[in-house]
Amino acid sequence: MARKRTDTVLVVKIQGDLDRRVPDQLVVEEPMSIQLDGHLVATTMRTPGHDYELAVGFCHAEGLLAGESVTGVRYCATGSAVDSNFNVVTVETGGRAPAPTPRLGTTSSSCGICGSQTLDELADRLTPLDLSLVARIDREIVLAIPDAVQAVQGLFTQTGAVHAAAAFVPNGEIVLVREDVGRHNAVDKVVGSLLLESRLPAHELGLFVSGRASFEMVQKAWAAGFGTVVSVSAPTALAVQTAKRAGITLYGFARGEQAVRYSPG
Amino acid sequence: MARKRTDTVLVVKIQGDLDRRVPDQLVVEEPMSIQLDGHLVATTMRTPGHDYELAVGFCHAEGLLAGESVTGVRYCATGSAVDSNFNVVTVETGGRAPAPTPRLGTTSSSCGICGSQTLDELADRLTPLDLSLVARIDREIVLAIPDAVQAVQGLFTQTGAVHAAAAFVPNGEIVLVREDVGRHNAVDKVVGSLLLESRLPAHELGLFVSGRASFEMVQKAWAAGFGTVVSVSAPTALAVQTAKRAGITLYGFARGEQAVRYSPG
Repeated sequence: MARKRTDTVLVVKIQGDLDRRVPDQLVVEEPMSIQLDGHLVATTMRTPGHDYELAVGFCHAEGLLAGESVTGVRYCATGSAVDSNFNVVTVETGGRAPAPTPRLGTTSSSCGICGSQTLDELADRLTPLDLSLVARIDREIVLAIPDAVQAVQGLFTQTGAVHAAAAFVPNGEIVLVREDVGRHNAVDKVVGSLLLESRLPAHELGLFVSGRASFEMVQKAWAAGFGTVVSVSAPTALAVQTAKRAGITLYGFARGEQAVRYSPG
Repeated sequence: MARKRTDTVLVVKIQGDLDRRVPDQLVVEEPMSIQLDGHLVATTMRTPGHDYELAVGFCHAEGLLAGESVTGVRYCATGSAVDSNFNVVTVETGGRAPAPTPRLGTTSSSCGICGSQTLDELADRLTPLDLSLVARIDREIVLAIPDAVQAVQGLFTQTGAVHAAAAFVPNGEIVLVREDVGRHNAVDKVVGSLLLESRLPAHELGLFVSGRASFEMVQKAWAAGFGTVVSVSAPTALAVQTAKRAGITLYGFARGEQAVRYSPG
């Protein structure tokens, strides 16, 4: 089954003082659960397509197959084959692979969401931002933030291998920068620092992220109350939907004199 | 406590026909478990430093604090404060936050390892590659692979937002390319495809990854039997240790006429 892998949305391309409203293609990001002989082993945010390969490759890499052959792979589609039925894939070994050990609350260097994989689940927990309370960030500040953060990224300068997240005030002053091998960890460190200093919700601040804006990054920004998120790279389709639902102003590809505003579109 | 955030290792810098053996700084990547009032909620691969902020920020972003105040954060260091005691952090609310729901087998767009967070655990499961069975990849092929893969990256061209993984033969021919919003998913898709075609172990193939080489990426390559991994970006210190233990030849920063060989160093 061919699944949609990109979504077309209207975005605002910003070049210096010029705004252009144009269509843009975003990569699709959706949760997929992987089962082995009927046992749930993982839920991952992924781009649809080659789902069977993903499920089998994951089970193999994690050592879950234990050398047993794969006898079948299938979607857990029941009678009514609505779209979400194609987000659960079962790998079968005829029960010969050992039952997977429950892996409680595990995550990874770039793992964020893990418990609330869909936007609907998230919206049940978080309410849209009150836009009258959220600081407005001018475009010249948005365009200047990436260089300002990189200038103080110590670990990146040394290793070229870490992501950064930063909180900044509307005049562009950087409040704090955190670096980590995982994008999500860098954001968690910024949010944790603000929480420990009783500075949440972060309505008066913008959030900068050095990597892409995935669903999980926007979710973390929403939970912390940031009204603006600036990413130097591309967002996913689900990240843009999430930003719109939250009322977050989301910029991507913020580099030099250019940026793209994805929300509001 | 100041924890080491970089490691210095000897690497081989390759520029065209020139090799130089030089010291290089790598970012440190280590597992950290997060507990809330004594309940394990997550284990993440992270760069040490600002660990309390990471733990608190994670619990907040996941909604686990449920609005309760943090009354304390501490390392679970017991009597003998060896280094690994500083890889478990407990966030305390005096038991006022609800007990976290067990989140079974959840992972994320960039999540790979999740069950075997340390190199020692991994070495218990996987044996070093038999180097007499593993294909040797010439340097000119290593230098050419990134451009060859990007030329066939359809989704990246459209969206700029996806990672790619590819398997290639020693003459540089690309066997297959998979793209995904998550780096780890792209590798899982390649490995899953090879497994479904009975082409594992992948001793005759090299693996290309468009992102950084973290521990989890090298672990997946090891499990699949790739003798060579080529990354366009930086590896972590733990990834290099893992490659050395596995016998994997690991290249990073493969761009144009240059690359860095991290293993063997």
